[in-house]
Amino acid sequence: MRQQKRIAIIGAGPSGMAALRAFAAAELQGDTNPEIICYEKQDDWGGQWNFSWRTGTDHYGEPVHSSMYRNLWSNGPKEALEFAEYTFDDHFGRPISSYPPREVLWDYINGRAMQSGVKARVRFAHAVRWVDYSEEAAQFTVTVDNLRTKETVRETFDEVIVATGHFAFPNVPNFTGIETFPGEVIHAHEFRGAERLKDKRVLLIGGSYSAEDIGVQAHKMGAQQVTMSYRSQPQGFAWPEGMQEVPEIVGFDGQTATFVDGQVREFDTVILCTGYLHHYPFLSRELHIESPNNLYPEGLYRGVVWQNNPGLCYLGAQDQWFTFNMFDAQAWYVRDLILGRAELPSAEARAEHARAWLERFEAAQTVAQQVQFQADYIRDLIDATDYPSFDLDEVVRIFLAWKADKQANILTYRDCTYPSVITGTMAVRHHTDWLDEFDDSIERYLETPKPQVTQ
Amino acid sequence: MRQQKRIAIIGAGPSGMAALRAFAAAELQGDTNPEIICYEKQDDWGGQWNFSWRTGTDHYGEPVHSSMYRNLWSNGPKEALEFAEYTFDDHFGRPISSYPPREVLWDYINGRAMQSGVKARVRFAHAVRWVDYSEEAAQFTVTVDNLRTKETVRETFDEVIVATGHFAFPNVPNFTGIETFPGEVIHAHEFRGAERLKDKRVLLIGGSYSAEDIGVQAHKMGAQQVTMSYRSQPQGFAWPEGMQEVPEIVGFDGQTATFVDGQVREFDTVILCTGYLHHYPFLSRELHIESPNNLYPEGLYRGVVWQNNPGLCYLGAQDQWFTFNMFDAQAWYVRDLILGRAELPSAEARAEHARAWLERFEAAQTVAQQVQFQADYIRDLIDATDYPSFDLDEVVRIFLAWKADKQANILTYRDCTYPSVITGTMAVRHHTDWLDEFDDSIERYLETPKPQVTQ
Repeated sequence: MRQQKRIAIIGAGPSGMAALRAFAAAELQGDTNPEIICYEKQDDWGGQWNFSWRTGTDHYGEPVHSSMYRNLWSNGPKEALEFAEYTFDDHFGRPISSYPPREVLWDYINGRAMQSGVKARVRFAHAVRWVDYSEEAAQFTVTVDNLRTKETVRETFDEVIVATGHFAFPNVPNFTGIETFPGEVIHAHEFRGAERLKDKRVLLIGGSYSAEDIGVQAHKMGAQQVTMSYRSQPQGFAWPEGMQEVPEIVGFDGQTATFVDGQVREFDTVILCTGYLHHYPFLSRELHIESPNNLYPEGLYRGVVWQNNPGLCYLGAQDQWFTFNMFDAQAWYVRDLILGRAELPSAEARAEHARAWLERFEAAQTVAQQVQFQADYIRDLIDATDYPSFDLDEVVRIFLAWKADKQANILTYRDCTYPSVITGTMAVRHHTDWLDEFDDSIERYLETPKPQVTQ
Repeated sequence: MRQQKRIAIIGAGPSGMAALRAFAAAELQGDTNPEIICYEKQDDWGGQWNFSWRTGTDHYGEPVHSSMYRNLWSNGPKEALEFAEYTFDDHFGRPISSYPPREVLWDYINGRAMQSGVKARVRFAHAVRWVDYSEEAAQFTVTVDNLRTKETVRETFDEVIVATGHFAFPNVPNFTGIETFPGEVIHAHEFRGAERLKDKRVLLIGGSYSAEDIGVQAHKMGAQQVTMSYRSQPQGFAWPEGMQEVPEIVGFDGQTATFVDGQVREFDTVILCTGYLHHYPFLSRELHIESPNNLYPEGLYRGVVWQNNPGLCYLGAQDQWFTFNMFDAQAWYVRDLILGRAELPSAEARAEHARAWLERFEAAQTVAQQVQFQADYIRDLIDATDYPSFDLDEVVRIFLAWKADKQANILTYRDCTYPSVITGTMAVRHHTDWLDEFDDSIERYLETPKPQVTQ
């Protein structure tokens, strides 16, 4: 029998990187880690933050993972996602604004992971094809294609951490007559930049974050008209001239769309902002989350341990107010279970715990209650680990302030600033108003402040 | 031990449908068939001919298979693809034109398959995840996700027929600076119609069939300018005003592309016509074709039997002059091997046979030689089966006439007509010139001829 445990991490995005960091932190404390292999199908880590111009499938024929677009700026304050053990001050050495663009956030997560020297643990361009579990051996066999050498390898592991996320496979429902629409029809997952929406009449189908942010991006880039179609309820922001919400769509006839309130409009481009699927094509259904995108998917003890087979854990499987620091809390806890620092309760105790939290989740109706629910969920994890505690209730207040700022003005909320709950450092206002800033590069972002340039 | 053999067919496109038809034909002759299960990830059969408005991934999260576009008309004469045992006369009951639109061809292949009553053998919305081979059991285990019920099933088979094709996973190379191009960037696989290219400056990267046909479609639909960038050699057709060929691309800077001859041009839309990959993510590399797209991929005896494991066969794995009737010849031969009607030669004999054909393939340099090579290849298969023989040399002549017609006029070749080599029936000219026909529906196509309508 092999002495050392073997652990597979599937995916090297923010969650997988958190797991690698968690094990590196234990090693620094003198712990002996199991053998860890992280499989990543992309050529670099960063997951969603690894921007690709490609859509559909990549140069290896694998589904493109990232839904990132050129013009993306954080749509929540960075103070709500800050790593408690690697702060923005640690990385940038000076205050920055609260809503950085994608390259800046990529630099931050990359910087922390590089500091731990864990990149060698990642097998890039490796696509996991299938995960088998053997009851007798109490082991997983992971079948992986090395996309560069074109070899298939099979390795056995004691535990598997699924860190592939659930914002990579779009939900693409049908709409009557959409096959007759002659313009561009894409899902938000395939959206790479709003520049080409200039002068266009854009229809965004959906009423959540994708529609909101692609909508304001399109508006910023000069779209003639931005129409957002909601199903359950309008977003209700104070939209500027040229942006409006309409109810559910009835169907298309060529360029014309009809809505349930009887409105008929013509469009040049349609973007489905219809969300994502929990889709793990490498997992048999016995190991596969079956859940809508919510804050407490069923079947996961403490939001991470697969109840039916606790050798399998998920990171980041929840809908997310909190992101990077929640992945950390989850990764630290999963690491502690694997290292034996934390004890896994019995199946009955786990089910009981999950039941109690599911009840709390179902009771959380308002936004404030839901954010608080996730803060409490994270606190429960942090309390079980040595991940540095931070003021989660203050982060809840930042989230609510962010919500209020968006209500006040959906076009200017990214100019607001918040203090770090970890370091107390107050963010600085970006040198250029977001609405006037057309250069999203890290170089431009980190430039010494100078008078605003309007393009 | 199980008495009856079990056969899995993966994919219910034209190749998989040919296999189903082949077994049905044997049954009509009194043969006892093995148990056959055909897995198809789409909701209907037809493969590439099953048009979907979706791109990227489908409503199940699976990569979209079809590269079909609304406006596609056959780009080769139907007389070259006619089933020898189900003719166009059999299906339509009257002569039709030589280059029908997609709905008409779909109707034809669907009509034949329906006639055999084999649809019940197809498990639709079933995605094959992994195929394992056990040397001891001499059996394959196929792991499949039922995408509707969300169950994972594992079934064992004696033989597996891979009929998923190789025009579903695009080859998406990188181009310097393409991530800065602000317009639409898609691969031909994601192209769904040329209407939106009206008034656009369109760059098509590639010098083969996709660039040619999307180019003339764009021209037909009123593109301002169609530029096709070739790597090895120009297509060399007599392009109309507004269409031109340029050599290889150096890179992009925003909307501007530079070419190796020093030309610099601005574009609104880029379509990669860069071909497809042999990509079978459900096959380990021991079972996986490793080949460029050519007329005789290595490792396949008679173009179908996997040399290293003859329990695995591929249909339609070649580059294709011939299509539907070649799939038939392959399917009939594979069926005969499975039924024991044909004998599989020894590994050495198979390797020797493949070597000889590979030499012939490499000697075929001109188009005429290559078409003749594929005709001879098909004849070799038909001679080994009871598939109805037909005049393959006459089909070669039709292919060469088609080539000449295209050279004469790339915009009008679809108005030409040819006789069926099976029935002798002469095709009729479509009631409307292709360039003036903007309605691709089967209803419009089958209308009683009337004076030409120009839209």
